Amino acid sequence: MKKFINDIDTLLDESLQGFAKAHADIIQLHTQPTVITRNTDTQKNKVAIISGGGSGHEPLHTGFVGKGMLDAACPGQVFTSPTPDQMMAATELVENGGGVLFVVKNYAGDVMNFEIASEMIDCAFDTVLIDDDVSLPKTHSTGRRGVAGTLIVEKIIGAAAENGMNLSDCKALGDRVNQMTATMGVALNCCTVPALGKPTFELADDEIEMGVGIHGERGHDTLKLSSATDIVERIAHAIDDDLSPQKGQKALLHINGLGSTPLMELHLIYNIAAQYWENKGIEICRSLVGNYTTSLDMTGCSITLTLLDEEMIRLWDAPVNTANFRRGC
Amino acid sequence: MKKFINDIDTLLDESLQGFAKAHADIIQLHTQPTVITRNTDTQKNKVAIISGGGSGHEPLHTGFVGKGMLDAACPGQVFTSPTPDQMMAATELVENGGGVLFVVKNYAGDVMNFEIASEMIDCAFDTVLIDDDVSLPKTHSTGRRGVAGTLIVEKIIGAAAENGMNLSDCKALGDRVNQMTATMGVALNCCTVPALGKPTFELADDEIEMGVGIHGERGHDTLKLSSATDIVERIAHAIDDDLSPQKGQKALLHINGLGSTPLMELHLIYNIAAQYWENKGIEICRSLVGNYTTSLDMTGCSITLTLLDEEMIRLWDAPVNTANFRRGC
Repeated sequence: MKKFINDIDTLLDESLQGFAKAHADIIQLHTQPTVITRNTDTQKNKVAIISGGGSGHEPLHTGFVGKGMLDAACPGQVFTSPTPDQMMAATELVENGGGVLFVVKNYAGDVMNFEIASEMIDCAFDTVLIDDDVSLPKTHSTGRRGVAGTLIVEKIIGAAAENGMNLSDCKALGDRVNQMTATMGVALNCCTVPALGKPTFELADDEIEMGVGIHGERGHDTLKLSSATDIVERIAHAIDDDLSPQKGQKALLHINGLGSTPLMELHLIYNIAAQYWENKGIEICRSLVGNYTTSLDMTGCSITLTLLDEEMIRLWDAPVNTANFRRGC
Repeated sequence: MKKFINDIDTLLDESLQGFAKAHADIIQLHTQPTVITRNTDTQKNKVAIISGGGSGHEPLHTGFVGKGMLDAACPGQVFTSPTPDQMMAATELVENGGGVLFVVKNYAGDVMNFEIASEMIDCAFDTVLIDDDVSLPKTHSTGRRGVAGTLIVEKIIGAAAENGMNLSDCKALGDRVNQMTATMGVALNCCTVPALGKPTFELADDEIEMGVGIHGERGHDTLKLSSATDIVERIAHAIDDDLSPQKGQKALLHINGLGSTPLMELHLIYNIAAQYWENKGIEICRSLVGNYTTSLDMTGCSITLTLLDEEMIRLWDAPVNTANFRRGC
């Protein structure tokens, strides 16, 4: 394993210290337990949006803390759920009279630990559970996973909360965005978890893995490497099966790099995917291309489509000022 | 070779089409010859800033076209200089009475082709040559290479031009920023150029390459993999030898990912490097961490230090609105 580290045990702490130092104008690092919060006050009674999950998906979630998006993020160890004391501390730090909305990706550990924290806190709260990954059926025993669509929910409800939307409306909006969002991922090569020291699965030189999540787990099919167009169409079909987009509908297309895929290839994927849906009469009116929800150094990408209404477009376009997502602030 | 492509011959065009479609609010793609320009008009007599170079370094330069930074970028084929007709077309498209300032990384092909274009255009022009890579001696036959420091020059003179600075002052400022900037890179694994189909050099599992450029060329030393702190200090010493930063000086620290290195590791590198210079009394007052000047899918990073004066800080902080670098617009 070749990585820039000093010690596996201190990797996350050293990295978070660097993140906090590099972005001291926007965020603040709290320790024992570890929480990242905005370093500016919010409007009294604003709903506080808190997310979190295992590390290794950077910039998700820490890179999205700031005005117009998250109030706090709770980073767990690599690919490991944060602990309830982190969510409790985050709540204590950022709750400001409007209650707390947790954004939780649907993984058993995350769900359980956010639930435990919810039972211990002493303010109004609710949870938006993200399960945008259409590579698993909705009937899967633990439900579908939350992947790159998470950022889209965080951006839209972050803007709504900033504009003064109350807790129950933010919760309903978050659920609506999640429902209108579908994602599927593909890997060309797997990632290496530092504590493991080798890729979590191996692919031959002519193989790709369809339907991967963001934790180095296998997908639902190992296929022969094919053209970018073929790969995009396979994913697009799965997204269509889930969302059934109608002619004339507006949509956000998000091509997300999983870590090691050059921007050049992500833009090529975007070009094919946008064309695919435009040919079906879908209006791709908003776009996001880049590494936003990564899986350490995995080579691959995911495609996310979110069907948009006018409210969602307005909130997507609203100013945001975080370490890794900025617009008009 | 596993990449998301349809055909090596159409990779760049398909990618640029996707880039243009995804960022149609900011930039515009021109073809025959290929040029990316802003899609908004500039103030009459504003100096037009034009850069370009081989593709494969995205987001450099195309991702930095927009208000407050570049007026146009000329992307060559992967790791191949753009042709003079591209720079001539770019000049034609964006020159607005204030003359043109070319930002050119110091590579023989780039320098020659920008020079040929300069001889053919019919307006005031000048060139800032970037040679921030301290892994080569200043006395090297073709001089030092331009690498990640290029972005810093582009940002600062981009802001100056936007504020109405004239051509000769923009040129002098660009030279000053270049002179105050030093960079060195290290690779853990090499990149794969699509047309070649395999890594341009091989490293053993316990080897790293110090002093790499951004075109998959070997560096000056193949070393045994060591701790992140050891790697950072080797690079920092080389930067110190060049810049001789003095106690109390302000500086911008830029940790640039070369393509496949997770943000978690780049922040860890940032933490060590910031600490290193702070211990020497240098004030790291501005920061940039992420994939900005990449080398396709190379695993590695570069460290850039720019010594700052108050004018440079003000211009660094000025609003900018490009596909991949935004602040306050």
